[in-house]
Amino acid sequence: MATALGRTEAYSLLSLSLACFGILANTLQGEGEPLIASIAFSGLAFAFCYALIRWLGQAFMRRGFKGRDLCKLKQTEIPETMGAVCAMVYLFTIVVFIPWPFYKDIVAATSGGGNRDVMRELEQVETGRLLHRFPHNKLASYLSAILSLQCIVLLGIGDDLFDIRWRHKVLIPAIAAIPMLIVYFVDFGVTQMVVPTPLRPYLGELFDLGWLYYIYMALLSIFSSNSINILAGINGIEVAQSLVIALLIVFNDALYLFVTPYPHPATDSHLFSLYLLLPFIGVSLALLMHNWYPAKVFVGDTYCYFAGMVFAVDGILGHFSKTLILLLIPQGFNFVYSAPQLFHLVPCPRHRLPHFNARTGLLECSRVEFERPLTRPIAEGLKLLHRLRMLDVEVNGEGRVVSCSNFTIINLWLVWFGPMREDRLALGLLAFQTAVGLVGLFIRHRMALLVFTQDNW
Amino acid sequence: MATALGRTEAYSLLSLSLACFGILANTLQGEGEPLIASIAFSGLAFAFCYALIRWLGQAFMRRGFKGRDLCKLKQTEIPETMGAVCAMVYLFTIVVFIPWPFYKDIVAATSGGGNRDVMRELEQVETGRLLHRFPHNKLASYLSAILSLQCIVLLGIGDDLFDIRWRHKVLIPAIAAIPMLIVYFVDFGVTQMVVPTPLRPYLGELFDLGWLYYIYMALLSIFSSNSINILAGINGIEVAQSLVIALLIVFNDALYLFVTPYPHPATDSHLFSLYLLLPFIGVSLALLMHNWYPAKVFVGDTYCYFAGMVFAVDGILGHFSKTLILLLIPQGFNFVYSAPQLFHLVPCPRHRLPHFNARTGLLECSRVEFERPLTRPIAEGLKLLHRLRMLDVEVNGEGRVVSCSNFTIINLWLVWFGPMREDRLALGLLAFQTAVGLVGLFIRHRMALLVFTQDNW
Repeated sequence: MATALGRTEAYSLLSLSLACFGILANTLQGEGEPLIASIAFSGLAFAFCYALIRWLGQAFMRRGFKGRDLCKLKQTEIPETMGAVCAMVYLFTIVVFIPWPFYKDIVAATSGGGNRDVMRELEQVETGRLLHRFPHNKLASYLSAILSLQCIVLLGIGDDLFDIRWRHKVLIPAIAAIPMLIVYFVDFGVTQMVVPTPLRPYLGELFDLGWLYYIYMALLSIFSSNSINILAGINGIEVAQSLVIALLIVFNDALYLFVTPYPHPATDSHLFSLYLLLPFIGVSLALLMHNWYPAKVFVGDTYCYFAGMVFAVDGILGHFSKTLILLLIPQGFNFVYSAPQLFHLVPCPRHRLPHFNARTGLLECSRVEFERPLTRPIAEGLKLLHRLRMLDVEVNGEGRVVSCSNFTIINLWLVWFGPMREDRLALGLLAFQTAVGLVGLFIRHRMALLVFTQDNW
Repeated sequence: MATALGRTEAYSLLSLSLACFGILANTLQGEGEPLIASIAFSGLAFAFCYALIRWLGQAFMRRGFKGRDLCKLKQTEIPETMGAVCAMVYLFTIVVFIPWPFYKDIVAATSGGGNRDVMRELEQVETGRLLHRFPHNKLASYLSAILSLQCIVLLGIGDDLFDIRWRHKVLIPAIAAIPMLIVYFVDFGVTQMVVPTPLRPYLGELFDLGWLYYIYMALLSIFSSNSINILAGINGIEVAQSLVIALLIVFNDALYLFVTPYPHPATDSHLFSLYLLLPFIGVSLALLMHNWYPAKVFVGDTYCYFAGMVFAVDGILGHFSKTLILLLIPQGFNFVYSAPQLFHLVPCPRHRLPHFNARTGLLECSRVEFERPLTRPIAEGLKLLHRLRMLDVEVNGEGRVVSCSNFTIINLWLVWFGPMREDRLALGLLAFQTAVGLVGLFIRHRMALLVFTQDNW
């Protein structure tokens, strides 16, 4: 990989950055316009991340962060864990962005927490607490989001460094979620859920989940991060699937912000969500341009954890966790589909990525060979899946199952549509994911009235 | 180093942890008593950090975080960068501690920032905002402190991994301070300083430093972190000097909390400071027990950055930055004294740690040999320092300066008191530092009235 930026690249990034700086400078004169500032910051984050990935590649390889691409004819070593760079740029961006949504006209108005040689009248402090866009307690939420994201980056780098065991790995997102959950507890503390109409006679209108709500949020973080981590293995798929989810959430946010009458009670939540997602889209695009087929860098587990955590934090603090789950259906399906191998009902090889056929240059579905005969119920199950076109099972002359395709959605796609080139495989999966997501959003907004008395449009 | 805990160690840590858990459980029943909870958390942090340093040592060495102790007869390799473990435990502790100082009686009272399917009356939200101990805006300060500390740990690990160049290294604390400064800007925004009495006719009672105040805070972070990083090189000195500073600040806080009449306007600030420092003392003690002569682990740059940042954050958000500077006088002196070598007025060898004499087992001051003759003013300057007993200069028959002791306070101590064993050297320096610190605090409280109209007792 070239470590320096090409002439065209350098000029493009430079002009993008200058344009973004110009927009930012403009927002300072008027009302602050945090949404426009957020877009400008995302542009800057893209440019900065793009350049850093290029500049730091060699340093990463020297320190042992490197890997070989198994799905290529020529397996040169390329940098690993570049998602960490991406995450650092992201964190820096959302920190520097803070003054825009939280800026207040009278700077001194909210002082008074501590004493700084000067004492202030409590009254003055209490009345001056109207911030520009967001109320004061949103700041704590926003900071707790950054804390949780920083935490997952730290733990993710720890994982990439020390190769933590699988059963500990799974819990990393739950640990990283702790700062957010604690601030939620101290700051917000609402743990009630609206009960669907059919269940109201039994549970009442609102049901207080209590501490179960915190378990729910921790589980959501675990699910979100790990499901992205599992749907991986071909160039670009980790970043691109995250981008699709992010864009779908942005689309959903935009519906609330621009289609429904303003001001809407959920406006704040969805602005909050956008502020977290737009810079994420910026840095992810920069990473995708290096990670797309043929990949020049790998993203590492850090990126998957980080992306999953961005969605979990966004969904929880933006109060649309159920919508988020809808958008993670393809990942959830992949997890459920993988379960037989993950829980060792069926033997699981070390790598389950597709098999690269050096002669055709295409990817074929990878298979697991059964050295020992399978127990009867499992063998019958596999045969049933084969008949449903959900698996490719090979049976020998005696009717014994000797091999089957690996249990991942990537291999299933290859079973369905035959061998194909790596980028076409990724594009197919992404198109599928986008379609499922759009249908999910449609259902969420059109059909929610069937089970709840009102949609929160 | 043994990787498992000995029987006595394990039982001691276990009983300490159980006692701390007991105390914590007790605080939950009464008023919350955050200060007692903080002490219990610090005990837990100590136990956890002690055990983790032991358990993770091997993993760190396998991943290349290891080094040799140059001041020992037998130079076996021991784990490096264990300060990162210490910092992680610290961060986890202060996050989990949040509910104690910020807990509120009516959990739902402060909700309302976003809409979570349920709408709440704004009135209810506005009136219910009295938290248990700290007002709401303290939470944002506290979170920004954690963010800056997490940031310095991330950058410190990056430094330990990639060996960042000196001139970039120096700026790391300023970058890490950004989250704190931004939240300070949004949340607090007071940039006025009380003007000393003699200057009042010219500047007025309060002088608004404006953006210079932010530069001042960034410089304080740089100074605090790097001055600890420079006073290093013998077993235990990095951690022990940090512990001395921390204990002196705690002593100063205790004066405000227990000696002055309650409630005092600065009570909140000094409680805040204690909450950040007590767990720091816990984890640092655990590290010191492994890093004290003869060292079984090294702390790494991460620890020095981290410790310096804890003090900077504590001093800035606790509003006693001038007192903090007083306590950093020995480090400041070491920096000024080192300046001729740091800025290459006098040649600077790669290592300036004392020289280990294998025959006596004692440390002697290390020297820099001048291969080329020095310019006349510098040679005269060195001779003057020699006469003032601030340097040991060797002059040959022709009157030419051929060598001198290295410009660090550690070598100066050896010049003054002759060769000594590594731990006695460290103890001597620490005693000196403690004495200077106590005198500094005395001056700060007794003599402040000479230049200000009132001390903020």
